[in-house]
Amino acid sequence: MPVEWAGSGPELLVTIDRASGAGLRAQLEEQLRTAIRAGRLAGGEPLPSSRVLARTLGLSRGLVQDCYAQLQAEGYLTSRAGSATRVAATASRGPGTPPPKPGRTTGHAIADFAHGVPDLGLVPRDDWAWAVREACRSAPDSAFGYGEPAGARPLREVLAAYLGRVRAAAVTPDDLIVCSGMQQSLNLVLATVDASPVAFENPGPGLPARRGIPVPVDEEGLDVEALRRTGARAVLVTPAHQWPTGVVLSGPRRRQLIAWARECDGIIIEDDYDAEFRYDRDPVGSLQGLAPDHVVSLGTVSKSLAPALRLGWIVVPPRLFEPLARAKWLADRGSPGIDQLALATLIESGRYDRHLRRVRSEYAARRETLVGALTRHAPHLAVTGLAAGFHAVLHLPPGTTEDQVVSSAVARGVGLYGMAGLCARPAPPRLILGFGNTPRGRIEPGIAAIADLLGALGKT
Amino acid sequence: MPVEWAGSGPELLVTIDRASGAGLRAQLEEQLRTAIRAGRLAGGEPLPSSRVLARTLGLSRGLVQDCYAQLQAEGYLTSRAGSATRVAATASRGPGTPPPKPGRTTGHAIADFAHGVPDLGLVPRDDWAWAVREACRSAPDSAFGYGEPAGARPLREVLAAYLGRVRAAAVTPDDLIVCSGMQQSLNLVLATVDASPVAFENPGPGLPARRGIPVPVDEEGLDVEALRRTGARAVLVTPAHQWPTGVVLSGPRRRQLIAWARECDGIIIEDDYDAEFRYDRDPVGSLQGLAPDHVVSLGTVSKSLAPALRLGWIVVPPRLFEPLARAKWLADRGSPGIDQLALATLIESGRYDRHLRRVRSEYAARRETLVGALTRHAPHLAVTGLAAGFHAVLHLPPGTTEDQVVSSAVARGVGLYGMAGLCARPAPPRLILGFGNTPRGRIEPGIAAIADLLGALGKT
Repeated sequence: MPVEWAGSGPELLVTIDRASGAGLRAQLEEQLRTAIRAGRLAGGEPLPSSRVLARTLGLSRGLVQDCYAQLQAEGYLTSRAGSATRVAATASRGPGTPPPKPGRTTGHAIADFAHGVPDLGLVPRDDWAWAVREACRSAPDSAFGYGEPAGARPLREVLAAYLGRVRAAAVTPDDLIVCSGMQQSLNLVLATVDASPVAFENPGPGLPARRGIPVPVDEEGLDVEALRRTGARAVLVTPAHQWPTGVVLSGPRRRQLIAWARECDGIIIEDDYDAEFRYDRDPVGSLQGLAPDHVVSLGTVSKSLAPALRLGWIVVPPRLFEPLARAKWLADRGSPGIDQLALATLIESGRYDRHLRRVRSEYAARRETLVGALTRHAPHLAVTGLAAGFHAVLHLPPGTTEDQVVSSAVARGVGLYGMAGLCARPAPPRLILGFGNTPRGRIEPGIAAIADLLGALGKT
Repeated sequence: MPVEWAGSGPELLVTIDRASGAGLRAQLEEQLRTAIRAGRLAGGEPLPSSRVLARTLGLSRGLVQDCYAQLQAEGYLTSRAGSATRVAATASRGPGTPPPKPGRTTGHAIADFAHGVPDLGLVPRDDWAWAVREACRSAPDSAFGYGEPAGARPLREVLAAYLGRVRAAAVTPDDLIVCSGMQQSLNLVLATVDASPVAFENPGPGLPARRGIPVPVDEEGLDVEALRRTGARAVLVTPAHQWPTGVVLSGPRRRQLIAWARECDGIIIEDDYDAEFRYDRDPVGSLQGLAPDHVVSLGTVSKSLAPALRLGWIVVPPRLFEPLARAKWLADRGSPGIDQLALATLIESGRYDRHLRRVRSEYAARRETLVGALTRHAPHLAVTGLAAGFHAVLHLPPGTTEDQVVSSAVARGVGLYGMAGLCARPAPPRLILGFGNTPRGRIEPGIAAIADLLGALGKT
């Protein structure tokens, strides 16, 4: 059934198949997502009102509203009071979409500042193959069967020691559950923790609309007083290096946050996604070490080794261990056993630390290059969030829009990514500059091109 | 070296080991963290000034200041202008109960007829390590990033060809979604197929009560007429070797089942869990090949290689591909990429087939041993379900109960497992005799012990 957008927008074909096994709302959502991802609906494009679309498709208005709310929560759509719902500027990179693969699909001639992925050329392939071989050689037969729901004991022992040493976590092997990366860990925790709604950081990756309440982040991190006012009893935070602003949660805020959790018997879900990389001083210890009874801490090797390994862990308060281990068992019968033993071997052998030292110095050098290039080419632009990880935030001059800068940059061979899709409310224009998988030599030409295009827009 | 707090605080022992590899600052930080967490330094306790502590320990004052600043940033310490640095009120750990440790299974002295696991001593460890090494050596950098939601393209190509060849499936790489084993595949399918209730086989593993309707299995497999009467539009079946009865779905029933799906536009979820092992003739082709638009077929390497690899796949009708790939992406961002490439390498190299030939002949020999032992020791007991896989069903004499036989067997050193837990209604007493992980030499003594205990119970 063809749908004509009211107004001047392009025609979009939406087909609702009532005989199909898939639900009506799922069909509508999926077709909108696909159209947005494929670029058939461009960033900024207005959508018809829920009333109009419902009538055109013969659906209930509530169903269309739910669908819009879901896609908004996922970052595909944005809406402002009194204005049409629109396709988000950054929607082709919504949370349901794989991140761009630098150098392969995007093909930006000068530089690609994509974020979220470490340098895939630095993955310690030989070390991993060696560790798997060692695991295959030395594991008992039983290690090839179904494992413990919470994960292989040897890995949990090695990880507990490692997290105590490196992240100042208060953790024993019996507080650890091995998972298949951050996404699964978060799913399991949200499904297990008996708390809805869950507060989350704004800007931030968001949560489905019905479960999440955005709470502002300022230069000290999450605004704990604002969190308190929401009445939520669970919050998802990125204290070591806030995603995406890069702010480090300050000491006073850390204490306020823990006090909040103790007062309301709440749960802090700590996403410790890139804590290994801190440049100005040692990594800040995890929140978990301060309040093990109130913090669930999520870790991953996606940044430290490679996303393709799909290994992560959850540090849980004792009362949540059994329900979370059970949820993991019901989800997939545990993560791959040999991979778990290989990771344990890698850490124990010292090769993991050696790899981290090597990539940390490379990322530190890129960060220096980025700062130097910005100082030379765009000294008037503010850059924040550089204390850790491998992305920073570039604040665009007033009067520009993210879309405008991103599309001009693409035309000049530079891949840029705006922050609007991660904002629950309208916010000043900002770019997320990733440098994890951006070769050092590409950084200066990329920044020069950005400065040049801002000049051409009359903004620098 | 003991440190006396200035004032009235408790004495705290801080030992700085200058010969240790760990930095002086790291040692001091770690000991203070540990003391705070363990409650040896209580909240509100004042610390000595950096000047005093530095002098006492023979360290530079700057080092102690850095250490205090770090612990302050982490929330362990607080400081106010003009006042002593103190232990933060929220920093010490409350009493926590360690979670219970899962128990270990007891060893059975004579034989263990546990089911569901292949012979873990026959897992091709060297082949797997070799395949991972090859994958690590030859994969492009991008293979170490996030992959496609549906799985690595090379594996989907190899699997499509393999399933067409071995399982007579009608499948292209675009119909395949790689998952982390059968459990996850089933979860994703049930969450995506918009059909509730779902019918399932009885006996069978069942489904949560709110979603499932049991349908009887007889000696030809699922009773399709009974299925029709339930009104369900989705059904979960194990046609190649029914779990747990071992019955193979007959040709007429296969045709009836597909006719049912076409009539009601229903979905058949085919669990193809142990299809590689068929002894009396070639494996029966998958249902999927007969009706690709109505069958979702689930496969796994848990029986053919090892459960610990956690790799499986879903063959889906075209209309379900996008929603299922998306569900997989939202569940865990895809299965481990390097493991996927390793499995592709293993199949492509011919090593997978070679391994299957080797273990198939071993399981066939065990099956012969089992049949021979039963003929010799318990000729009056019926055994069914021996056409495929590595379990059979032993029908117990009237008047016995599964519990009685199982517990008498355990007392004699034989591990046995009843079927009652897999039956939705009361049923005659039966045992599931697994021989996948039972060494050939243990089978005859085990069967002899069963015959003996039935004799002692006056039943043979």
